[in-house]
Amino acid sequence: MSSQARNLEALRLLPFFAALAPATFEKLTAAARIERMRKGETLYRQGEKAASLFVIVEGFVKLARLSSHGEETVIHIFGRGETIAESVAVLGDNHTTTAEATGAVTVVRLPAALVAQVAREAPELSLTILQESSAKIWALMDEIETLKAQTADQRVLRFILSLCPPNAKSCSVRLPYTKGDIAASLGLKQETLSRSFSRLKAAGVEIDGRDAHISDTAALAAEIERLNKLV
Amino acid sequence: MSSQARNLEALRLLPFFAALAPATFEKLTAAARIERMRKGETLYRQGEKAASLFVIVEGFVKLARLSSHGEETVIHIFGRGETIAESVAVLGDNHTTTAEATGAVTVVRLPAALVAQVAREAPELSLTILQESSAKIWALMDEIETLKAQTADQRVLRFILSLCPPNAKSCSVRLPYTKGDIAASLGLKQETLSRSFSRLKAAGVEIDGRDAHISDTAALAAEIERLNKLV
Repeated sequence: MSSQARNLEALRLLPFFAALAPATFEKLTAAARIERMRKGETLYRQGEKAASLFVIVEGFVKLARLSSHGEETVIHIFGRGETIAESVAVLGDNHTTTAEATGAVTVVRLPAALVAQVAREAPELSLTILQESSAKIWALMDEIETLKAQTADQRVLRFILSLCPPNAKSCSVRLPYTKGDIAASLGLKQETLSRSFSRLKAAGVEIDGRDAHISDTAALAAEIERLNKLV
Repeated sequence: MSSQARNLEALRLLPFFAALAPATFEKLTAAARIERMRKGETLYRQGEKAASLFVIVEGFVKLARLSSHGEETVIHIFGRGETIAESVAVLGDNHTTTAEATGAVTVVRLPAALVAQVAREAPELSLTILQESSAKIWALMDEIETLKAQTADQRVLRFILSLCPPNAKSCSVRLPYTKGDIAASLGLKQETLSRSFSRLKAAGVEIDGRDAHISDTAALAAEIERLNKLV
């Protein structure tokens, strides 16, 4: 199997491409470009007209807003399999965020005009775009719930637990992005995150640089439950 | 002109209906129901399968999440002209929030199955649904930016200023919903909102029950700018 064919097989596994009819998949992938980015490189900038939509193949992309007085706020960090800018690209609107690689990132770039044109003839692509927008609405609502209802420690514990594979009793993982990006995505100051990391030792979590070791995931889940009841 | 015809004319002014071809508009409005609700009545509950989508004609609807341990968090409050549950209804998914009238509310209820069916034949309706989803993504991102980047006073000042008509020098308005709902939508405790309301007097804002008087909108905007620079 050629390298190109292997790449196409891999795209089929991503939610954005999974439900497309073979002809629709071919039209899209014929114009798709696989791009690799390094930490700090931008996919697009706030204010630009949306010309492409992106599917994340590997790594994490942060969406941030720059306020009129120059302050940057991280809105959300998206990872593997998630689609970025799908609605704004199809509608031909301007980007309201800047998208930046938080580390090594691989994305599929699809030309917005082609996606909009193919979607007109292929209802399953329209539905996929709506599904991706709907998933985004859920993710942003989850984040608002977290920001409004959870303390710093609760946010950090849930984030750490989310790094462990389901049903793992213990796990050692690498933090997916820098502590600065973790703090910003959780809506915390970096000092607050550091203090929370120190307190986590009591719950069996050791953070050493970018490495995290969780000795007992059940104890971590129990601690989250205990903090929930204190609210 | 009959009352029914006048109602239909009014619907045409709402963004959801504005761009529809006459035949599409007729198909939708033939099955539409105008519903009036009182404070506390629900449009749908979290966990139910989405059977309708709603367009707000008058009033404000709050979307809230109930956590597994019974805590309610207001995610966002939507107002006149905004559409609710459009993507989840067309996709046939379950509601992830409960929608509740914050006061007297008038909505148009459209059956989800009909909207999904008409959208398959009317590309302008598909586009409208995507536009409404995109508008929701923007609104939720705005809210995340506010929650992460702004102090209680900044959130309250911006909320109060948003109640004034553009270009008004001064204005007297009624608060759109209860102080409890205002606090919850801004991610503040009610005591924090009350303290912020007292401090607003210095910026020329008087709150008396549900009435607000802003004596100088330019001074209010200048105070927001000053607080921004302090961050």
